Amino acid sequence: MAVAAALRWSQLTTQEVPLPEVTAYAIDSPTGSFHKTTVTRRDPGPTEIAFDIAFAGICHSDIHTAREEWGKSRFPLVPGHEIAGVVTSVGAEVTKFQVGDRVGVGCFVDSCGECDECREGYQQFCTGSGMIGTYNSIGRDGEPTIGGYSTAFVVEQDYALHIPESIPLENAAPLLCAGITTYSPLKHWGAGPGKRVGVVGMGGLGHMAVQIAAAMGAETIVLSRTLSKKDDGMKMGASGYYATQDDSTFKELRGTFDIIVCTISDGLDLNQLLQLLAAQGVLVNVGLPSTPNELHVGGLIGGNKVLAGSNIGGIPETQEMLDFCAEHDLGSWVEVIGGEDINQAYDDVVASKARYRYVIDTSTFDA
Amino acid sequence: MAVAAALRWSQLTTQEVPLPEVTAYAIDSPTGSFHKTTVTRRDPGPTEIAFDIAFAGICHSDIHTAREEWGKSRFPLVPGHEIAGVVTSVGAEVTKFQVGDRVGVGCFVDSCGECDECREGYQQFCTGSGMIGTYNSIGRDGEPTIGGYSTAFVVEQDYALHIPESIPLENAAPLLCAGITTYSPLKHWGAGPGKRVGVVGMGGLGHMAVQIAAAMGAETIVLSRTLSKKDDGMKMGASGYYATQDDSTFKELRGTFDIIVCTISDGLDLNQLLQLLAAQGVLVNVGLPSTPNELHVGGLIGGNKVLAGSNIGGIPETQEMLDFCAEHDLGSWVEVIGGEDINQAYDDVVASKARYRYVIDTSTFDA
Repeated sequence: MAVAAALRWSQLTTQEVPLPEVTAYAIDSPTGSFHKTTVTRRDPGPTEIAFDIAFAGICHSDIHTAREEWGKSRFPLVPGHEIAGVVTSVGAEVTKFQVGDRVGVGCFVDSCGECDECREGYQQFCTGSGMIGTYNSIGRDGEPTIGGYSTAFVVEQDYALHIPESIPLENAAPLLCAGITTYSPLKHWGAGPGKRVGVVGMGGLGHMAVQIAAAMGAETIVLSRTLSKKDDGMKMGASGYYATQDDSTFKELRGTFDIIVCTISDGLDLNQLLQLLAAQGVLVNVGLPSTPNELHVGGLIGGNKVLAGSNIGGIPETQEMLDFCAEHDLGSWVEVIGGEDINQAYDDVVASKARYRYVIDTSTFDA
Repeated sequence: MAVAAALRWSQLTTQEVPLPEVTAYAIDSPTGSFHKTTVTRRDPGPTEIAFDIAFAGICHSDIHTAREEWGKSRFPLVPGHEIAGVVTSVGAEVTKFQVGDRVGVGCFVDSCGECDECREGYQQFCTGSGMIGTYNSIGRDGEPTIGGYSTAFVVEQDYALHIPESIPLENAAPLLCAGITTYSPLKHWGAGPGKRVGVVGMGGLGHMAVQIAAAMGAETIVLSRTLSKKDDGMKMGASGYYATQDDSTFKELRGTFDIIVCTISDGLDLNQLLQLLAAQGVLVNVGLPSTPNELHVGGLIGGNKVLAGSNIGGIPETQEMLDFCAEHDLGSWVEVIGGEDINQAYDDVVASKARYRYVIDTSTFDA
């Protein structure tokens, strides 16, 4: 394999060594549909690995980005930042992976590596180059990054994760975003024995928050719009399940939670949720509303309450989360789909029909 | 002294033993003025102390309460929850104070003492009887509580603080509210060496936050509307001072603070302040806006930021704060006024003219 990673992609394409072409699903505009296409991956550089993608999860962020609900996107767009596969080749200086290793990539593929945040393992807050997103960003090579709705991937070894043997790859893929997004705030804010944790929303993020909080030893209560997913929630480890469409829920649970992880963004009522916290309780939001919310600051002051945000996690904590999930036999509950099903899956995610994550089987791409 | 504390006040007034009458300043309606009057204090019960008030600070909360800006108040109202004096008598079972001790009372005079919060020293969050405010509350005896704009006070020993010898009583009085309100969040959120702390507002709370943050070893930066108090701020320990009316302030300081303590309520722009935080930074609000604020939740998620409230402090932490101030030679910067000056002082506080706390000398009451 040609060692050409030090060159820019634009230079590479002038070389005679052909670059690996891989099948992918792309969308060409915010109102378009996903279609099969071909993208070019670079050869792995000395410290990079290449891997075959087995599964890629569909995250609600993919939909927001594809539909430009969070601002302008780069088209054609190949989303996917919940990626699981098996290593196929490694650069000459790679020490962390071997061919055949089970490997994952999450929401970012690069950062400066030198700022305080990077050195402390918070690459997602890199103040140097900034975190380079797995798709819809510009990589170090000056080219747009291409996500996991594709059959192969190339990444610096420092931004890849080891997926433990005990977690099937399809159940592991969503952990790379949904898993770490919920694990990180639960760990940071002290979920564990003696703590009462509320999880708002029972979607892709919520169903992981329930499993992780319960595995951490916390008393875990779900607050979902309806009781339709109650049986699943209880199987995932919840000890209580309430419908937020029922007003009595907010009276009954008032002042009872140490930690609430809120995974919803639409219809978010911060003031109502803050009232559910006990003194010194923490409401962590991981959903990103597109419009501003109204906040009564007095609802924070009475009881020294905390409203926090949390944004994925750094590489060390993501590995820790994967190991934690393996130890506790956790994984995402998934529905495996083919490439042709992506468009329908997007509509179904928006309609809250997923149980609980759609995962694309990339072996269907070249069928 | 009659031992009658087990009786209700209403019963006491039918006894033949006369209750101590003390001079006070009261206000009779939200649009009224303070006038000299007489109030009755109970005799100290077995575990209570009586003390002569030397000084009482004027807190902005007193004004909000007297003018009913935070809801209905109980009139006639004698405010004052920044109280410093000297013990004049103690009940038979009092072990914590002796006659002649320097003593302080802050924002509350009672709580259930038995709930988890009380047992952990967070009496301000009492979930039993609730915290009993020093004024404008109903005490255990069923009577309205009467604050520190008066010449003597009676309180359970467990709700009184020892004022260290080295702090003059007039400089100590405001510590009982302004001091603990700023000390508690600075301590909780880790102000200290290597941390950069912003203090928003240079009033009664802000001038204490600056002194305490600097004494904790943090790099301390003031953000005030104008630079008019800059010299004072630098003397109090700040190493930088910026005007918030200058737009360049927000550009220059963007992403630089670990902790911001915000002491203002009017004109509070949470989104703007959150942008001043570094990743994982904390914005603590101790000012209580009377209307809701607009919050972009995304400003919390990017950078795992925290928006917290903080409400005074419990008895153990208030004592710790007083001892910390003595150790570091800190106290409130005050202007001592007489009882007849209270009405003018209220207007001057609202007009931000205080430098930095008006403290009422109660020896003027009986002149």
